[in-house]
Amino acid sequence: MSKNNLITIGGVLFEGFEILDFFGPLEFFWPNMAKIVTLGEKKGPIKSAHGVRCTVDHTFGEFDPVDVLLIPGGYGTRKEVNNEKLIGYIRDYAVNASYIATVCTGTALLARTGLLDGMQATTNKLAFEWVTSQGPKVNWVPEARWVEDGKFFTASGVSAGMDMALGLIEKLFDRETSLNMARAAEYEWHSDKTWDPFAKLAGLVK
Amino acid sequence: MSKNNLITIGGVLFEGFEILDFFGPLEFFWPNMAKIVTLGEKKGPIKSAHGVRCTVDHTFGEFDPVDVLLIPGGYGTRKEVNNEKLIGYIRDYAVNASYIATVCTGTALLARTGLLDGMQATTNKLAFEWVTSQGPKVNWVPEARWVEDGKFFTASGVSAGMDMALGLIEKLFDRETSLNMARAAEYEWHSDKTWDPFAKLAGLVK
Repeated sequence: MSKNNLITIGGVLFEGFEILDFFGPLEFFWPNMAKIVTLGEKKGPIKSAHGVRCTVDHTFGEFDPVDVLLIPGGYGTRKEVNNEKLIGYIRDYAVNASYIATVCTGTALLARTGLLDGMQATTNKLAFEWVTSQGPKVNWVPEARWVEDGKFFTASGVSAGMDMALGLIEKLFDRETSLNMARAAEYEWHSDKTWDPFAKLAGLVK
Repeated sequence: MSKNNLITIGGVLFEGFEILDFFGPLEFFWPNMAKIVTLGEKKGPIKSAHGVRCTVDHTFGEFDPVDVLLIPGGYGTRKEVNNEKLIGYIRDYAVNASYIATVCTGTALLARTGLLDGMQATTNKLAFEWVTSQGPKVNWVPEARWVEDGKFFTASGVSAGMDMALGLIEKLFDRETSLNMARAAEYEWHSDKTWDPFAKLAGLVK
């Protein structure tokens, strides 16, 4: 944790990131709980999958290690899994972070670092085959809203990141804080990690 | 609708906007359905309530009317309700839009234009008193996930904007599209507009 007792969350941005993967989890971390910084390969505006641009505050390496590393998915991950420089940066920050939270296909980027090998993880049920192919040594869980294994929090598709974030807040703070943050956002938290109707819809389980 | 058959969504940005109010609804409008543009008083990066910056693509007035105007809430609305210039811009775009969608305290900005007078609307249950005071002639609905009245779609707090957006997509396209978009985001849509446990929690209804 940082000196002023605020958690520092480093959000990884790349072209074609999915907006709700990123902003859904961040919503529950209010400024009195966390300082959010955005990290990328180049400072300045960067285009999301929906076209809206956000700003990269710091380039990787110029910013200190963060307490929580957040990695969104999005179509950009299809290209970035082969970006060795970015994967290297993610590896460095992940090694130093207390928690790593990934959403949807963002888990493919973390899997490429090798840090998930031998760990349990999940991902988007509609992109399951592709993401899991990026980490053949990961113990992939086909039916889960999100999975926690050590310091790795991996969420299923897009909106699952919000449920995972509240699970992470429970770990970092307490359950009451999670419930308060959900209520403030008028959000119905799926607090059961195993709730996953989408695995069945995708034919991953019977 | 624009010439290329894509809906144009104009998202209103101001300092201190709430990230999930904005990006939650936008998530469900994929690039093959809508072109999203961001509108503000000044081009360039603008700070959200959580500190993360997004980019204003166009200043008000320099961009054509939009099909859907999206107005997020956030602490910034407390100041912006008194920004006559901004309220004037919102009024102009709202008059010309096919639909106006507001989330949380963003409804206060729309209420200040006078366009909601005599119409039904709702807002965040924890900020109900303040928002309703900005539009004394509006027929405020204390218990609703979101309210549709003519071209005005007003959502309750923060995450309610996502449910409203899927309701708007049903109106603009069809129900199947809404269900498909919800599934793609692994989102459990509260498709019942009257579902609102938060009104009771806030003591607005018994």
